[in-house]
Amino acid sequence: MDRGRLEAFSDGVFAVAITLLALNLAVAGPGHGTLAHQLTDQWPAFVAYAISFFTIGIIWVNHHALFRTVPAVDRALVFLNLLLLFFVVAIPFATATMATYLRHGGSDARLAMAVFAGVFEGMSLAFAAVFLYVVGRRLLAVPLTPSMARAATLRFTIGNAAYLVSIGVAFASPSAALAIAGAVAVYYMFERTPTATPDGSASLPSEADEDEGC
Amino acid sequence: MDRGRLEAFSDGVFAVAITLLALNLAVAGPGHGTLAHQLTDQWPAFVAYAISFFTIGIIWVNHHALFRTVPAVDRALVFLNLLLLFFVVAIPFATATMATYLRHGGSDARLAMAVFAGVFEGMSLAFAAVFLYVVGRRLLAVPLTPSMARAATLRFTIGNAAYLVSIGVAFASPSAALAIAGAVAVYYMFERTPTATPDGSASLPSEADEDEGC
Amino acid sequence: MDRGRLEAFSDGVFAVAITLLALNLAVAGPGHGTLAHQLTDQWPAFVAYAISFFTIGIIWVNHHALFRTVPAVDRALVFLNLLLLFFVVAIPFATATMATYLRHGGSDARLAMAVFAGVFEGMSLAFAAVFLYVVGRRLLAVPLTPSMARAATLRFTIGNAAYLVSIGVAFASPSAALAIAGAVAVYYMFERTPTATPDGSASLPSEADEDEGC
Amino acid sequence: MDRGRLEAFSDGVFAVAITLLALNLAVAGPGHGTLAHQLTDQWPAFVAYAISFFTIGIIWVNHHALFRTVPAVDRALVFLNLLLLFFVVAIPFATATMATYLRHGGSDARLAMAVFAGVFEGMSLAFAAVFLYVVGRRLLAVPLTPSMARAATLRFTIGNAAYLVSIGVAFASPSAALAIAGAVAVYYMFERTPTATPDGSASLPSEADEDEGC
Repeated sequence: MDRGRLEAFSDGVFAVAITLLALNLAVAGPGHGTLAHQLTDQWPAFVAYAISFFTIGIIWVNHHALFRTVPAVDRALVFLNLLLLFFVVAIPFATATMATYLRHGGSDARLAMAVFAGVFEGMSLAFAAVFLYVVGRRLLAVPLTPSMARAATLRFTIGNAAYLVSIGVAFASPSAALAIAGAVAVYYMFERTPTATPDGSASLPSEADEDEGC
Repeated sequence: MDRGRLEAFSDGVFAVAITLLALNLAVAGPGHGTLAHQLTDQWPAFVAYAISFFTIGIIWVNHHALFRTVPAVDRALVFLNLLLLFFVVAIPFATATMATYLRHGGSDARLAMAVFAGVFEGMSLAFAAVFLYVVGRRLLAVPLTPSMARAATLRFTIGNAAYLVSIGVAFASPSAALAIAGAVAVYYMFERTPTATPDGSASLPSEADEDEGC
Repeated sequence: MDRGRLEAFSDGVFAVAITLLALNLAVAGPGHGTLAHQLTDQWPAFVAYAISFFTIGIIWVNHHALFRTVPAVDRALVFLNLLLLFFVVAIPFATATMATYLRHGGSDARLAMAVFAGVFEGMSLAFAAVFLYVVGRRLLAVPLTPSMARAATLRFTIGNAAYLVSIGVAFASPSAALAIAGAVAVYYMFERTPTATPDGSASLPSEADEDEGC
Repeated sequence: MDRGRLEAFSDGVFAVAITLLALNLAVAGPGHGTLAHQLTDQWPAFVAYAISFFTIGIIWVNHHALFRTVPAVDRALVFLNLLLLFFVVAIPFATATMATYLRHGGSDARLAMAVFAGVFEGMSLAFAAVFLYVVGRRLLAVPLTPSMARAATLRFTIGNAAYLVSIGVAFASPSAALAIAGAVAVYYMFERTPTATPDGSASLPSEADEDEGC
């Protein structure tokens, strides 16, 4: 399968999912207290919107960075990619549920946050599976060097472990679990998936930061 | 018509429909029992989401596999493709209705499941119509061999028959009908539409499984 | 402006609008009568969904047929295209409103149908404006012949006049106005916008029907 | 990063956001007064829809005009672009909230309009940041001339200042603030971001108005 249409479809799903996030922001309308009160009361929705928006955005960036080095995709990779999108599409639901319950506190808030963190963990594991499959089946135009493979492994381990920890933390402190999800987004904004550049030179992100590579 | 824009528009519809599926997952919110109870109570919604997600995903994969071997599309094919999308777009509605009624049981659950299976049958028939039109009008870059034609006929017959059966089964056991829809998704995940590869060699899926074909 | 991105953006809007149509199909759920009754009661929603779906689909087909003969677009054309999309995006709203009120009858049903027909008229006028601008500014790769220009004028006049008539008819009989909208969709499914083919030969639709032109 | 996929993803977000705007237009349905009354009562929703639709449309046009002169994008630019999309995606929420409260008047209407204007200001500042980054990092295929740089600075300053003023005006007169947002949309419809043309000649918009440039 030509990778172009996989990217086009994935971009469509990312774009719709990231835009649907904002549907959660809706206020209840007149007759439910002042608007100022409603907006203040909804702070978890705004924080959740920002974290989920940039998390989906980062996944999209990494998705592009990975696939542009993969000349052709096979059927198994298409389905692993569908599994990744399965979790991406669930993010607006998980975000809305979490934001709704977080301000009510109690055991429901803890469960809602655990579901939120669980969807992020699923998405993160699916992305790792896509990456490992691409590397293992030698679908990259240029193979990873050992140092790149180590850096990539470290990177995925950090993300997956952090989301896994946040599932547990959710049952103690939902806000702390949310903070972890935010911290992971910031971490990934600065730390890239190591992949070969299309011009054929394998490089670590740090070496490529100054050129146009992404 | 250049096939590129037909694919782009179809990808957009597939992407929006697959993402809208998750809108059905919304829980009722605080004051409607514990979240744990709501999530457990909603199991049909999650099962339905998974089955519909991967069914749309598979249709997209097969859509791509078919159209990449069609250099140009005529007006009738565009409208057959619209008919296919007509049913794809109805899947989120059918999924939501089915998931809502399945947990209430009774005759409504049976009808809702029959509607769900009916939309899948319509989608499956429309895809078969697209395929038969493409083959009949010799729009494929490389014609199907007799063995490929037999394999394709078998494949479409199995899917169409299974969905048709599930419409009937829905009136006896909605859960059994849902299981059939899930089984069809798994079947199609492993069984591909036979089409020629773009490099010009006609091949059965089994022969192409080890290369990059999709 | 390169026409590629105008097409990509327009395709996205068409795809989202056509998919959002199905959101109107939602049934009220358990406790609002049997599902069979709800589905029967909602027949205007299903008819409206089908008519609006194929109307947007046809506009998309014609949009593609027109723009593939326009090598480059200028800023005014981009804004005329935005005006067209402005009405396309309003179609799900007009469809939902019409479907909701049609089964209640009375003056609200008449007004709702007039609004529905009015949005279709606006969309039709905007498409005519796009077409006339393209022809008038000589943006077509191959100019229209006089017979093609006559055919195109006739075609747009029929559509615009039919929708205009249906606005008036809506106040007498909403169902008759809906039937007109359906008839226009069928008419346009068989009658194409005359434009030059990309290979440089100007042709009427009837002459191109047997080749791959669309 | 290849700019193609950044454009495709951005186009998807623009397309979904612009189409979701129309979800705000929904009327309450039978039993909430006559449809005529509901439609008249909803005038702010229709005005808001039109202003937000064309504002997003203009941002899309300018986004295209800017990026088609940028051969490759780096990681920082991708995230600045995500920040722009973050505000674009929030526009349907801001529009719906504003339209809901505007007709109720009072302090809630003033706050809702300030939030609306604030989202537009954020979007405008993010676009200016994208532009300044592109110019500052010399990512343009052809550098801006001093006169083009002055024209661009003036253009962004006018938009940003107008939205900033409208935040303040919102607390005195929400309608006046809405009028400012409408006026800015009209202004940008006629005034373009100065950028080099792809054929290599740097030009002010006024010089390029007669050719196919956009």
